[in-house]
Amino acid sequence: MSSSISKLLPLVTAAGLALSGASFATAQTAPLSAQDSDPRVMGWMQGFPPPPDKLITQPDSNYFSFPKLRWSVCHLREFLPTEDISRGLGAPAPLDYPTPAAFAELRQQIDALTFTPMNSDTPMTWEESLYANYTDGIMILHEGEVVYERYFGCLEEDGKHAIMSMTKSITGLLGEILVAEGVLDDSLLVRDVIPEIGDSAFATATVREVMDMTTGVQYSENYSDPNADIWVYSRAASPLPKPEGYDGPDGYWEYLQEVKPEGNHGDAFHYKTINSDMLGWMISRVTGKAVTDLASERLWRPMGAEQDAYQTVDGKGVPFAGGGVTAGLRDLGRLGMLMLNEGKSGETQVFPAEVVRKIAAGGDPSRFSGFATIPNGSYTSQWWVFHNDHGAYAARGVHGQTIYVDPTARMVLVRLASYPRAQNGFIDPTSLPAYQAVAQFLMER
Amino acid sequence: MSSSISKLLPLVTAAGLALSGASFATAQTAPLSAQDSDPRVMGWMQGFPPPPDKLITQPDSNYFSFPKLRWSVCHLREFLPTEDISRGLGAPAPLDYPTPAAFAELRQQIDALTFTPMNSDTPMTWEESLYANYTDGIMILHEGEVVYERYFGCLEEDGKHAIMSMTKSITGLLGEILVAEGVLDDSLLVRDVIPEIGDSAFATATVREVMDMTTGVQYSENYSDPNADIWVYSRAASPLPKPEGYDGPDGYWEYLQEVKPEGNHGDAFHYKTINSDMLGWMISRVTGKAVTDLASERLWRPMGAEQDAYQTVDGKGVPFAGGGVTAGLRDLGRLGMLMLNEGKSGETQVFPAEVVRKIAAGGDPSRFSGFATIPNGSYTSQWWVFHNDHGAYAARGVHGQTIYVDPTARMVLVRLASYPRAQNGFIDPTSLPAYQAVAQFLMER
Repeated sequence: MSSSISKLLPLVTAAGLALSGASFATAQTAPLSAQDSDPRVMGWMQGFPPPPDKLITQPDSNYFSFPKLRWSVCHLREFLPTEDISRGLGAPAPLDYPTPAAFAELRQQIDALTFTPMNSDTPMTWEESLYANYTDGIMILHEGEVVYERYFGCLEEDGKHAIMSMTKSITGLLGEILVAEGVLDDSLLVRDVIPEIGDSAFATATVREVMDMTTGVQYSENYSDPNADIWVYSRAASPLPKPEGYDGPDGYWEYLQEVKPEGNHGDAFHYKTINSDMLGWMISRVTGKAVTDLASERLWRPMGAEQDAYQTVDGKGVPFAGGGVTAGLRDLGRLGMLMLNEGKSGETQVFPAEVVRKIAAGGDPSRFSGFATIPNGSYTSQWWVFHNDHGAYAARGVHGQTIYVDPTARMVLVRLASYPRAQNGFIDPTSLPAYQAVAQFLMER
Repeated sequence: MSSSISKLLPLVTAAGLALSGASFATAQTAPLSAQDSDPRVMGWMQGFPPPPDKLITQPDSNYFSFPKLRWSVCHLREFLPTEDISRGLGAPAPLDYPTPAAFAELRQQIDALTFTPMNSDTPMTWEESLYANYTDGIMILHEGEVVYERYFGCLEEDGKHAIMSMTKSITGLLGEILVAEGVLDDSLLVRDVIPEIGDSAFATATVREVMDMTTGVQYSENYSDPNADIWVYSRAASPLPKPEGYDGPDGYWEYLQEVKPEGNHGDAFHYKTINSDMLGWMISRVTGKAVTDLASERLWRPMGAEQDAYQTVDGKGVPFAGGGVTAGLRDLGRLGMLMLNEGKSGETQVFPAEVVRKIAAGGDPSRFSGFATIPNGSYTSQWWVFHNDHGAYAARGVHGQTIYVDPTARMVLVRLASYPRAQNGFIDPTSLPAYQAVAQFLMER
């Protein structure tokens, strides 16, 4: 693998990582704590110029590894070409807050909540969980009001943070909106939408199978095999000039045209990032718009976002629909509220309510496996559905990103994080029970 | 020159181009007209994917050459790593507009205005000049009110456009603010501010000489000489990984440490981009902030910008203080108003009035030469001062960018453009007389 291409791998691979931590894994060697790895404590990129050992640069292929990761999640744009998801030009939609005194009291109460992590007998407080999870930003909305909001590490209220595979849920939401509007027919085969998909294994999958990741496509993420698909995909996706003599696919879409079959379409859920990029391509084909422009028109503008978001692009300007978005914490809160309120922002129905109902209903848990922390889940339109007694569902991304929607508790929770390891299997044990505890508290207050 | 490094040259060189068109030059062969080279007419980047001959990508080293330039000026971020200049999170400061009927009438009147281009006997209408100059966006404010605003080519009201060397004027304005506040002492030598500047020719220049570009430093822009300084600078500045065996300077600031002397400091004005980056470094050193963050805090936030701007960075994350900014047309109008109103935005004095007074007063025209279209000008704090009877001054960037402030007419004019050739010497003949004509019209209306 050429060194110039390896530069981009940390990002692409982290975003595309299968959440394959099937056991309640724990890190083998204890990494630096959240407090000790705080980028301000580490001194990353401080000074003009920073000392050489405090520099984080793109030519350094470690820029997306812990602990540098803790700085880089807020600064992806400084490493890579990107495209804006514009908020438009108007005033942002204000968020409702309690009085400062009530807000401070809520924070005290929530910080002191206790819960028992999965696979453990030792209770933990909510506030302890924030550090256990290397939280960079967390916001909880209840009944439309912000009841909790804190920033750590590299993130501030006017900053932005990589959302990794939560990008897929934005792509899936856009896809589901287009299905509801009749613009995208989810019963079609991919080759009916994108004729030039050719002999790719995707050709004979339905749009719906792509949306729900039940396609039978080969995509190996064996990082020790230099010929694994993940490396071929990363080389294709890199926006850096291709090395001399490179003759592989150029860009996400050329890669998708070469995908080999593995198993049968429709049999079972397999978490493979290439489905999200396949969906992104179909969305752009039927709308004539980049997914960035569509996310702006259909989500960021109508929900009254306060910041533009952005999305990394390949060498041909195609946004990474499977993992490339960076956004502000509060705007992700607005997006979660749009889900909780079934497409309504204030009095405006931004997209049909059935879009959220279909996602929240989820799929067939019997065809879902491989995620020990989500024993009875499903994956629908690129959203994770827990099938728990609150009907909760979530967008999820590696290193601890989540938008968690609990319709029963009328709660939206957004957490942005930079956990040392990628897989949420490591992070869920101190996260999912904490979310349930705070939901219970909010329902009873 | 390695091919991987040559990719970035179009941008860097275009931004750094000396405006050395000393004669009233005209293009040797007629390029496509503004209408025919409109990126929508050319079909650049249309379709998902676009046809191969309509793709504009970074690995294509022509991406910043006409006619592709006409698309790329609105899309730099899709090619390069960048850093935001945040507008903050609040509501934008509204701009005042006349009634739609009055606005339409003003447009008719202004479009019909005639003027005589420099070095010509044939009158031209204002509207003809917009096409002659390959205008992408133009806005005129008079007495605080938007009296004219039009978009062409790749630009729309919610889009952004490269401002090229107008970036220098932002850097210079920030520098002048810091001087007025006593944070930056312009009588110091560069080596007193940046000790590690070492033996560079900059070491013994004063901060003021750097601000006014009267340093005696070597910086050749002979594009046919592969060892010309512009190429060395471009290689240093490229955010792409350096090629195998590269042992030159890495980043803007390492380059500045190696600059050789040429002539004496203080003798005369020489337009050399490296002065702007030297100033940017000193600004960051004395404030502890990147120029992007400082532009956000001191300009974009207080003036109520409606869009974030952005700035390209080198491989170490240092913003290109000499040419890297991209911004929205209306926000550049707000910046021009801040200048016209001597630092006031609404009722708030954003920075001391003396900052603008010093810039507007200009320098000594007898030490200024080489710009036939500005026969009696000067260059102060990185702003062009015309020393005409209206006391006009301007930010200027290659390919036709300008913020033109006419204090006598109480007019601010912003033009963003993608003229086929870089030097404003080609563009001024159909621009400067047009600005004077519209100023006259506004004063008399």
